Amino acid sequence: MRAVVLRAPHHVEVAELPIPHITSPTDILIQVEQTAICGTDLHPYEGRLELEPDIVLGHEFLGTVVDAGNAVNQFTEGDRVVSSCVASCGSCYQCRRHQPGNCAGARIFGLGMALGDLAGGQAEYVVVPNADINARHIPANGTACDDDILFAGDIMTTGYEAIARAMFPGDTVAVVGAGPVGLCATMAAGALGAAQVIVIDKVAARLKEAENLGASAVDAAQNDPADAVLDATDWRGADVVVDAVGHESALLTAISLVRAGGTLSIPGVYNEDAITMPFGELYLKGVKVEMGVSHITEYIDEVIALNCAGRLRPSAIISHRMGLSQAPEAYRMFEAREATKIVLDPRS
Amino acid sequence: MRAVVLRAPHHVEVAELPIPHITSPTDILIQVEQTAICGTDLHPYEGRLELEPDIVLGHEFLGTVVDAGNAVNQFTEGDRVVSSCVASCGSCYQCRRHQPGNCAGARIFGLGMALGDLAGGQAEYVVVPNADINARHIPANGTACDDDILFAGDIMTTGYEAIARAMFPGDTVAVVGAGPVGLCATMAAGALGAAQVIVIDKVAARLKEAENLGASAVDAAQNDPADAVLDATDWRGADVVVDAVGHESALLTAISLVRAGGTLSIPGVYNEDAITMPFGELYLKGVKVEMGVSHITEYIDEVIALNCAGRLRPSAIISHRMGLSQAPEAYRMFEAREATKIVLDPRS
Amino acid sequence: MRAVVLRAPHHVEVAELPIPHITSPTDILIQVEQTAICGTDLHPYEGRLELEPDIVLGHEFLGTVVDAGNAVNQFTEGDRVVSSCVASCGSCYQCRRHQPGNCAGARIFGLGMALGDLAGGQAEYVVVPNADINARHIPANGTACDDDILFAGDIMTTGYEAIARAMFPGDTVAVVGAGPVGLCATMAAGALGAAQVIVIDKVAARLKEAENLGASAVDAAQNDPADAVLDATDWRGADVVVDAVGHESALLTAISLVRAGGTLSIPGVYNEDAITMPFGELYLKGVKVEMGVSHITEYIDEVIALNCAGRLRPSAIISHRMGLSQAPEAYRMFEAREATKIVLDPRS
Amino acid sequence: MRAVVLRAPHHVEVAELPIPHITSPTDILIQVEQTAICGTDLHPYEGRLELEPDIVLGHEFLGTVVDAGNAVNQFTEGDRVVSSCVASCGSCYQCRRHQPGNCAGARIFGLGMALGDLAGGQAEYVVVPNADINARHIPANGTACDDDILFAGDIMTTGYEAIARAMFPGDTVAVVGAGPVGLCATMAAGALGAAQVIVIDKVAARLKEAENLGASAVDAAQNDPADAVLDATDWRGADVVVDAVGHESALLTAISLVRAGGTLSIPGVYNEDAITMPFGELYLKGVKVEMGVSHITEYIDEVIALNCAGRLRPSAIISHRMGLSQAPEAYRMFEAREATKIVLDPRS
Repeated sequence: MRAVVLRAPHHVEVAELPIPHITSPTDILIQVEQTAICGTDLHPYEGRLELEPDIVLGHEFLGTVVDAGNAVNQFTEGDRVVSSCVASCGSCYQCRRHQPGNCAGARIFGLGMALGDLAGGQAEYVVVPNADINARHIPANGTACDDDILFAGDIMTTGYEAIARAMFPGDTVAVVGAGPVGLCATMAAGALGAAQVIVIDKVAARLKEAENLGASAVDAAQNDPADAVLDATDWRGADVVVDAVGHESALLTAISLVRAGGTLSIPGVYNEDAITMPFGELYLKGVKVEMGVSHITEYIDEVIALNCAGRLRPSAIISHRMGLSQAPEAYRMFEAREATKIVLDPRS
Repeated sequence: MRAVVLRAPHHVEVAELPIPHITSPTDILIQVEQTAICGTDLHPYEGRLELEPDIVLGHEFLGTVVDAGNAVNQFTEGDRVVSSCVASCGSCYQCRRHQPGNCAGARIFGLGMALGDLAGGQAEYVVVPNADINARHIPANGTACDDDILFAGDIMTTGYEAIARAMFPGDTVAVVGAGPVGLCATMAAGALGAAQVIVIDKVAARLKEAENLGASAVDAAQNDPADAVLDATDWRGADVVVDAVGHESALLTAISLVRAGGTLSIPGVYNEDAITMPFGELYLKGVKVEMGVSHITEYIDEVIALNCAGRLRPSAIISHRMGLSQAPEAYRMFEAREATKIVLDPRS
Repeated sequence: MRAVVLRAPHHVEVAELPIPHITSPTDILIQVEQTAICGTDLHPYEGRLELEPDIVLGHEFLGTVVDAGNAVNQFTEGDRVVSSCVASCGSCYQCRRHQPGNCAGARIFGLGMALGDLAGGQAEYVVVPNADINARHIPANGTACDDDILFAGDIMTTGYEAIARAMFPGDTVAVVGAGPVGLCATMAAGALGAAQVIVIDKVAARLKEAENLGASAVDAAQNDPADAVLDATDWRGADVVVDAVGHESALLTAISLVRAGGTLSIPGVYNEDAITMPFGELYLKGVKVEMGVSHITEYIDEVIALNCAGRLRPSAIISHRMGLSQAPEAYRMFEAREATKIVLDPRS
Repeated sequence: MRAVVLRAPHHVEVAELPIPHITSPTDILIQVEQTAICGTDLHPYEGRLELEPDIVLGHEFLGTVVDAGNAVNQFTEGDRVVSSCVASCGSCYQCRRHQPGNCAGARIFGLGMALGDLAGGQAEYVVVPNADINARHIPANGTACDDDILFAGDIMTTGYEAIARAMFPGDTVAVVGAGPVGLCATMAAGALGAAQVIVIDKVAARLKEAENLGASAVDAAQNDPADAVLDATDWRGADVVVDAVGHESALLTAISLVRAGGTLSIPGVYNEDAITMPFGELYLKGVKVEMGVSHITEYIDEVIALNCAGRLRPSAIISHRMGLSQAPEAYRMFEAREATKIVLDPRS
């Protein structure tokens, strides 16, 4: 089969590899029909995350089951499925407490040995372990919502969780960062009953996308986000602030926007060893902070249902569709920010 | 002032009465700008609920504060406000547990001595007791959402609570009864992220209204509602069933629609002494049942925020606007079901 | 191996059967060390539930793993484990919503084909399917809490869930019925912070047990339970009422005890087709009702932790310990109510 | 009346002042029967919080109502009451969302103009504003639990909230700091069903108190708290960590103790402008953080119920009882750490 392999930083190739096969009775093998490049893929691509050589990349994908282990209950050959980007065990302490993102044996597709040694989904075939826990049926009304469901395994559900764990209906939500996760959070806020969503970024095109989703856009290069949020909330601040960036400056902006008693919800990934925080301000405001790896399988069913109902349409952020064979060019464009979101077709 | 007075069953008059005045430091006096006739008003109108003579009717209203007691903190003359139809104390055992519908001293406007002896709002002026607890500001962006906020004090929030206390995003909701509360529940389900809403009634016009709100409509005169719900849910049944009717037959229909592990949420008012229920089926399914007088002040803030955001538009169900002086005709039409919802203007 | 087999109503035998073996990669085989007779076992024993002949009875047991399928992650030979009495799949719609008691493929040990065809645990060996989901480790601090953990798979967790899903700390709880589940609910209420627990029964010995657990006991043969509960709650009624009986009269008593805004939590099993309920009273009070098959695996971890901490000690209700070979006599005594709870030792 | 007045840092006097009187219809006047010195009182006493001269100190007190405004519903002369240390309005945005600690008009007794200009309770009489919201009846079973209820208005409820908002039954809780709030959190954890509580401090006497409450004590001067917590939790870390200190070092210790997916609950008061936090570790663990001024009136009813049930006994931490006239000596002792908790009797 053909697969996108990372040979070295900035060097991906479409290689011919043997079709993988299931090795555990709880595995399924999927023939991939769509797969996407995610911002997280840039970590190994740019060499910021060092992987073993020749890793198959990719953790956003959907397709059709072509083989299933004999302990798989939910899936059989021919079923169309999407998978969580994080494979959890379903039975450790954290999984039993409904925190699969903290699974003791969590594995992420296409990110190498340290993250569980799972080959990625930018390929014609991929194995999903512990399928009953980690995969989901694509509802039978055909392929109508495939483009939306593609993102249910990662960015859409990550943005959704950031809202669902923190927001009450009628709330004012501020989203710092209008990248893919920020835009997904913006959609989720609307679908779950936010009264208003205020999106902060400095890139005009992204702000335009946020406005298309019904949000108010604040260009932080030109206006003080705190002023904008206070204006929109009778000077209280936002009930929920989503930090969808993952840098210290975004965090400090986010803290400045939240009201007393509000919640700071952080889907952004933080690698910094240390950040100096205005802790007195957080204490005085009585802020609740939520962060960490997403609990995809806890929220993916809601997301898929809302995808198929047309209430969440993350396909809106797809900017390019290319063949898998064009992966080297696709990665180049994505790194160069010439594309917002690229979907690859493994069949071409 | 002019006020709608119930002289005897089926006999309302527009009487000239003294303007009421505040008697407690926590009261406010409101000059009424809009008031509506509610299904509950038919209970005394039709003689099913016997009241003392000469009660001023009405518990859905909004207007402007013209006087405020000296212990009122939130309101001052000139403020535009809407009030909960139930006035609670804010400090009894149930109120402290956030269950104002079960307030030990709950009073309802316009329903006589037994319900707390509060003159109603179908009048030029009305006193709202314990205003800091029971009234709410109409947001300052003018009168743009008045038509929607008018219902925040009763039917919209009642329908909203029936959903909010029971539904998770992505759920399938079945609503039995497409009257005003059922339609408000339908709107709320959409606003809070239902994947699909199925509305059951036998009146074509009501089903049409439900479809206009984005729901699937099932005419129970022609189709088995259980079949329709099972078809839409992979044979599981609805996650949440709202019984917005309040009769034994509706309850039995509702029970037949709910999935194993689902919730039956009952905003409908039950006066029956006894109903014979299929308890074995409820047990086997493991159904959760929620019912009782609405906790309006627990949900009204969310409803008002969503009204002003344009996400809840109960004004869609207004069928007639008339002057307060036409109240006798309005009551006749409403009882005769010639009108879905009538708004009265106290100034004409 | 020896096993307790139901030959016909009122006729159990200790038979010599082949040791069962695992048939799925997710199964484990347990050598049983303790097993108990549960009230539910009387349904087939007394012929109220008709089973196929020669069923191995029993669904409360613990022991040591002697074989594990190759897809089992959590357990290996030599591990000491307890199992939920209900085996759920962990991946159907209801399981994914954390409602394993409503699992589409729920199976109960020792209750025949209709309930999933699982051989029971009153035997030297028993197979537990889907072990990662349904079994739990007995904490490594030896066998100190075995006697308590034995009940974690059924009655203790059933009583615990009835409290945990309904009670807030500081509440007044009324428990109708001081049988094993009622007593377990009483213990749970204490462990989770009830301010007072009032237990209602007519059997002096059971009421004495309730008092030993710190509850107030009301003999319903001599006193009106409603008077007792109103006296203890400033005339409000109980915040939570547990119906641990499962008969119409208990349900009506329970309804009479609950306060406005309170919760009626029903672990009792209802088989009645129809019960005539005071629905107007339920509506007026605004009662929430929770019922259905227990979600054992959602609560069993908390129960085991509290067993080992000494905060829940259901072993207190054990009245007799006998050898498995005495099973016929044990069943006779249990039916005759000569024993509250009998534990059988499969090794003798 | 006699009252404890702060003349200057380290200089309190018992002054003769006029008895205060109610000025709002929602006020009550209390004749104080018991009042305590709290750690927070040391902030002005030691000059770290600068107050206007001649402030009456004290915010922990109980007594009997001797006057009540005409808009007070819950209280009348002769009622025995305790008050929250924070007086909230009950009707602002935050109060309506059940976050009274974030009340827009929050006032704290005895801490000067900036915190709302309320005279304190270390006096023979004190006025409680908005009494229906902020005061609570002492249950009528006499004065049996007065000593415990005295702390319901502040430290007991603060410690309780730190647990109640974060803990599930069966959890392992680590408490950093065995001062009054840490010990109250320890009690609360036990009352609400913690499986184990591990208390970390460096003062032997405090650790001894923690052990008396059933906790495991870790002397951080001699042992690594992280080792102790990992040992007790199969190397996971604590489910909930309470930082009851409020200094950077305590916070860093607390972060090191919490498990992946756990909660860090901070009742400690933070004044630091900035703290450098291991944010990457927090992100990787997926920690939830809760902090801020306590929402006393949300939890005080549960605390009082548990006080009277004997399940919370904070009176155990009282080390000294003195007359109000001895206040100067009491403050000296308290600052010198010669006393854990001092209760003053205003009548002597």
